[in-house]
Formats: sequence, C-alpha cells, structure tokens
Amino acid sequence: MDAKQYLKKTSAEVDGPIKSYIPDEEPMRLIEASRQYPYAGGKRMRPAIVLAACGAVGGDKSKAMPLAVAIEYIHNFTLIHDDVMDGDDMRRGMKTIHVAYDEPTAILAGDALFAKAFQIIADLDIPADAMREVLRYVTKAVWDLARGQEMDVCNEHQLVSEEVYTETILLKTSVLFAAAAAGGALCGGADAKTVEAINKFALDMGLGFQMYDDYLGIAGDSSKTGKSVGNDLRKGKCTLMVTYTLEHLKDEKKLAKFKSVLGNMDATEDEVREGMEIMKEIGAIDYNKKAAEDKIASAKSYLDILPESEDKEFMLSLADYAINREV
Amino acid sequence: MDAKQYLKKTSAEVDGPIKSYIPDEEPMRLIEASRQYPYAGGKRMRPAIVLAACGAVGGDKSKAMPLAVAIEYIHNFTLIHDDVMDGDDMRRGMKTIHVAYDEPTAILAGDALFAKAFQIIADLDIPADAMREVLRYVTKAVWDLARGQEMDVCNEHQLVSEEVYTETILLKTSVLFAAAAAGGALCGGADAKTVEAINKFALDMGLGFQMYDDYLGIAGDSSKTGKSVGNDLRKGKCTLMVTYTLEHLKDEKKLAKFKSVLGNMDATEDEVREGMEIMKEIGAIDYNKKAAEDKIASAKSYLDILPESEDKEFMLSLADYAINREV
Repeated sequence: MDAKQYLKKTSAEVDGPIKSYIPDEEPMRLIEASRQYPYAGGKRMRPAIVLAACGAVGGDKSKAMPLAVAIEYIHNFTLIHDDVMDGDDMRRGMKTIHVAYDEPTAILAGDALFAKAFQIIADLDIPADAMREVLRYVTKAVWDLARGQEMDVCNEHQLVSEEVYTETILLKTSVLFAAAAAGGALCGGADAKTVEAINKFALDMGLGFQMYDDYLGIAGDSSKTGKSVGNDLRKGKCTLMVTYTLEHLKDEKKLAKFKSVLGNMDATEDEVREGMEIMKEIGAIDYNKKAAEDKIASAKSYLDILPESEDKEFMLSLADYAINREV
Repeated sequence: MDAKQYLKKTSAEVDGPIKSYIPDEEPMRLIEASRQYPYAGGKRMRPAIVLAACGAVGGDKSKAMPLAVAIEYIHNFTLIHDDVMDGDDMRRGMKTIHVAYDEPTAILAGDALFAKAFQIIADLDIPADAMREVLRYVTKAVWDLARGQEMDVCNEHQLVSEEVYTETILLKTSVLFAAAAAGGALCGGADAKTVEAINKFALDMGLGFQMYDDYLGIAGDSSKTGKSVGNDLRKGKCTLMVTYTLEHLKDEKKLAKFKSVLGNMDATEDEVREGMEIMKEIGAIDYNKKAAEDKIASAKSYLDILPESEDKEFMLSLADYAINREV
C-alpha cells in the first residue's frame, strides 16, 4: 500500500472518532465553531502517523485512536488561531471561523479544541506512566508551535539565516509530527529508545516536508500546486533558496536585482522570472531540493530500528512522498 | 490567620516559583509577553486554594506548588485572551498584551501559557494516576471556561434567565477554583470522596464570590470598588438583581422604566438611580445578597469532612471573605 492509499484508509477510519468527542452542549455556537475544521476532512496526516507509529511497534492501534483525534484537534486549534492572526478569510473552501462567526468565538473555539485534546489524552486507555510521557511530548510540541508561529511573525519582511529558517520550520511543522509519532509509539507500548527513534524520524521528515513545500512554491507546476509560481518571492517568504542566494551571490548587480524583487508585491512577472533565474544560476534551487532529500534520507534511517511491517512501510513511503509530489 | 494574611503569605511563597517555569528562549518577544501577567502579581487566590487544599488533606504542600503555578498560568492565559476579545487596553495598570505587543503575540502568549501549564502538570511529582486525575479536572475546567466566555459573548445585550446566569458564572469563575481545589487535594494524596467534597466547596464558593461581586457593583461604595455605582446597569450586565427584577416586577410602567435604563449607556445619573431604586423596592438587591450568602454557607458545609487545620481555616475564611468585603 503506498502512502496515498494508506492515508485514504486512515482518513476513513479516523473520521468517525473525530466526530465523536465533541458532544452537543451549550453554547452550541461554540461547539459548532470548534467542529468546523476537524469535521471538514483533510489529509489526516498526523492521525495516520499516530496510528502507524503504534502499529509499527507492534501495538494495538485502537489504543492510539483517541490520541490520533487529539493530535488532529491540536492541529486544527493552531489553524484556527493562525487564521485569526493572519486575517485569512477562507480555508478549505469555507469561511474561516473568525469570518463565519466572529473573532472571540474563533479564539475560544481554538482554546476549546486545545482543552478537549488534553481531556482525551487524560483518558487514554494506556498505563498512567505512558500517558504522562505522551503528555510531555504533546505539551512540548504546543509550546514549540507557539514559539515557531511567533518567529514567523518576527521573521516577516526580514532576511534571516539558514539556521533561523530551519529552527522556525522545525517548531512550526516538525514538532507536532514528532509528538504524533512518539505518542503513537507510546500508545503501542514502545520502549524509550524506540520512541526516541520514531520521534527523530518525524522531526526530520517534517523538515524535509516543509523544505520540499518551499521548493514546490518556486519550481512546482502552478497548475498543480494552485500557487502562482514565484509568488513566494514577491511575498518575501523565507526559504532555503533565499537564504542560500543571499549568502552566496557575490555579483553585486544581481544581488541588488534579487533584493529588489524579494518581498516586493509590485514586482512584475518579468522581474520575478529574473529573480528565479538568479536563484537557479547560483544553485539555490538545487540546494533546497537536495537539503529536503537529505532530511528525508536521515529521517528514514531512524526507522532501521523497527521490524518490517505495513505500518513501517507507510512511514517510509510517507517520507518518500514528502519529496516526490507535485502538490 | 485570616484570609487576607494567608493570601499575602501564599503570594510571597508562589512568586518565586511562578517566575521559574518560563525560561529564556527564542523568540524572547513571546517569552516576555507570556511572562507579563503572571509576573505582575495579583491576589494569587487560585494558587492559595491549591496549596490550602493540599495542606488541608494532610499533604506535603511542596508537591502542590507546581500545580499552583500551572493554575495561575491558566488563569492568566484566559485573561490575555479575554482582553483580546473584549478589546481592553489596560490591566493592573499596564497595557494589555495585544496593545503592548500585537494581537498575534497576545494570542500566542495565551496559547504558550496554556501549553506550559500542562507541561508542568505532566511533571508533577505525584503518582501518575493522581496526575491523570488532576489533568482531568483541569482540562474540564478549561473546556468549561471557553464555554462560559462564549456564553458571556452570546448573553451580551440579552436578558437571560437566572438559570442561564448561574450556569455562565459557574463556567466562567467556579470551574477553575474547583480544579485548583480538587487538584491541590489530589497532590496531597486525598481519596476520591474528599477530592469531590473540596471540589464542590470551590464550585459554590466561586458562585458566591461572583454573585457578591455583582452585588458590590450596585450596592458597593464606589470610592472603594473603583467602579462607578450603577454602571453595570448602563452596561446591561446580567446579574441576579436584573433577572429577579425582570421576573418579579409587575408594575408595567416601572418595568418599562427599568428596561429603558438597562443596557443604555446614555442613561443619566438620575435614570440609573431610579433603576436602582426599582431593584431595591422589589427586593432584588437583597435577593442577590442572600443568594451569595446561601452559596457560601453551602460551600462551607462541604468542608465538614476535613479535620481542623490552619489550611481548612483559610478555606473557610476565604469563603467568608467572599461575602464580607468592600472591594
């Protein structure tokens, strides 16, 4: 089963549970707001990682199902709050919560999902010591997510180093993947060494995933990604391609040209094309792609500790998928 | 030791720990924002309840200190988000976080404090099963707090029943007191029956506290409360005095008069005075005061289960203080 098939299967399995933990309660307005994102579907990558990690260590996946739901709620809580912060109006073809309801309700719906996730973790049907470890991973992830989001706010319209870039995507993307993976393994009864390996797998996979996402934004096929190619340059989005170019480009004229495009929403199509050509020439685009591939190779190596299984196979194929996709 | 002295003593004890759980980390802007409210002091009522409940069941209070910090962080997380929602500019003589920093940082600082609180709970130095119970109480409280705040948003400019009013203040005020009390007792090793009794004590105390707060807003000495007397009427704040008046006032002319003042920010001093006179005549103000006193009496009765101790004494005196204060 390849990654896409596995995700589809998991998605069908988790949809029911995802809809079972938020009961009808007053005020229904808040309940409905908090249900909107998790009920709307999506790839369910994080729940799939929770379940696969549990299965890959020989655990009973039904023990990990509530955690799969909790992690998805946490992911959705961050999306709701991010949408408020970014002032985004639409997500997944629907109005965002602060638009469909109002801003207070959006903030509260996020808080409520957050609380519900930890209620679910408290009730996990696993030994209390293992639950405590799950809680440690997940709370650290949420703490880090907030740091990563604030870094993103601070980085905006700033040129940061490769180090700061990597730290930001680690916090914004990887830590929740990692909590999902480690938590799933803990639900499956894994020992500390295995949990740690699976955690590291997910951290690196998250980095590779995000780096490749950036790469697609520049080198991808816009008819498939749905993003207008090069728009990330106009928005001044910090990526490895940008940090590499700024660090290695010695031709002053080209550097000035590149900087004049970066973060310039008024840049013309031609100017954007020129900026992209500059990145290509200096090798920044290849560098970014290679960095993503290296992270994925590193991620996969951590799974050597696991015996062969369909679940391990999925985790490996998910990592491959991260750098072999068009969308 | 009376309630005020005990609070002062506790406040001195918890200030250090409160400042020890948020380490210097990047981005410092978020760290500083998340520190502002908890570091600014305050009555520290919730931490005092945690510690007193632990002591009152014969526990070692040092085991409950981290939970005292966690509960205070949760209280502060809700204040930060409430200030964003209400658009309030000042708190405790300082600019609110969304004003001093920006709104995204305020939302994230709240989220970060929330996550940190649960990190602290995960690390409580008590048996994992007891920690799991603490987690259940606290997560339920946060879920309920979000519901209560949303109810408040929905109730605004609406005339609600006494039942809805009571449910709202239960969720907005009592549940976190109750989690503090039950959590402290659990840290002290209390059995389920004792934990439940202490939980009920705090639920009723919270109700009495809030009802008396409303009472002070109408019958209090504005030179002491700092609130202009009767302003709650202008704001249309829902209180027992209002629900009682609307339910019992049969004189149509007076009822029309009362409704014309309620929620009318342009009402004159004379009109507000008239509105207050109407509430007084019908017995609404006495009814509110009596309701607060009844809740406090009920709260105290739950503590009969505990042996005499300084900590029990504090909890009883705190309940008395709730309905014997001028501020």
